[in-house]
Amino acid sequence: MFKKRDNIKEVEEGKCLAPKFDNNGLIPVITTDFQTGGILMHGYMNNEALKKTIENREAYYWSRSRNKIWHKGQVSGFVQKVREIRIDDDQDSIWLSVDIGNGASCHVGYKSCFYRSIPLGKIKDTKELEMKFIEKKKIFDPKIIYKNEPNPTKL
Amino acid sequence: MFKKRDNIKEVEEGKCLAPKFDNNGLIPVITTDFQTGGILMHGYMNNEALKKTIENREAYYWSRSRNKIWHKGQVSGFVQKVREIRIDDDQDSIWLSVDIGNGASCHVGYKSCFYRSIPLGKIKDTKELEMKFIEKKKIFDPKIIYKNEPNPTKL
Repeated sequence: MFKKRDNIKEVEEGKCLAPKFDNNGLIPVITTDFQTGGILMHGYMNNEALKKTIENREAYYWSRSRNKIWHKGQVSGFVQKVREIRIDDDQDSIWLSVDIGNGASCHVGYKSCFYRSIPLGKIKDTKELEMKFIEKKKIFDPKIIYKNEPNPTKL
Repeated sequence: MFKKRDNIKEVEEGKCLAPKFDNNGLIPVITTDFQTGGILMHGYMNNEALKKTIENREAYYWSRSRNKIWHKGQVSGFVQKVREIRIDDDQDSIWLSVDIGNGASCHVGYKSCFYRSIPLGKIKDTKELEMKFIEKKKIFDPKIIYKNEPNPTKL
């Protein structure tokens, strides 16, 4: 769908969008809150999701757990309005800067999916690494918002 | 090496680090500049790189192009000092906040790998999408810094 990648110099230094999708047809996406700059989530897009995101200025992803295109906010109402899209040097990852107002991005109920911090320094036992909660209060109750939707988290 | 993932509630709401590595043994990593909050790069770690990063407080990745552990800055000198590590809800992606001083993070010479922005709105031709350079000046000359190192970008 997008331009063929046939020249490394062009991919790195050129102006033409030529994204690289992996063997599953996906490209990783980092989504940040344009107001705070904080990271909200890490997801994936296929070429159709990327095209829809560019054209509709709202974030579309590929849900690996549901195996389908996912218009973020369709169920929860927490739509992500896209303010900027960037791509990296070798064009194999995307950065979306989005507006979610006072909403949330994480299906567990927190604003950001990255609500826990890993302690730094010498590890005594890798199986017992205790993290710290950075976000302490959920923005919404997933049981109310998602009702009977299956949990996307897989073991 | 890390805790076994045997309970979704614990993975999402618990304090114990139980990262999910994909079929290639890798977990995606987003790296931001702790001073500006901007995204520097998107990479991958295997379990050894994650352990080294936690213990040494410097960023280690898995280089997919070189197929080996990669201590960022080993060649360029642009070491990333880790200020914080977070993990997301289902523990399948990592956020590193790092100090690179006045250095750079991108092998092309820019500070961030995300130096180009994709235009938003109706697409006329997906094969001719012209991006805009957000960073206009390189911080270093890759030819001088990397000399004969092979370019990690693949088509």
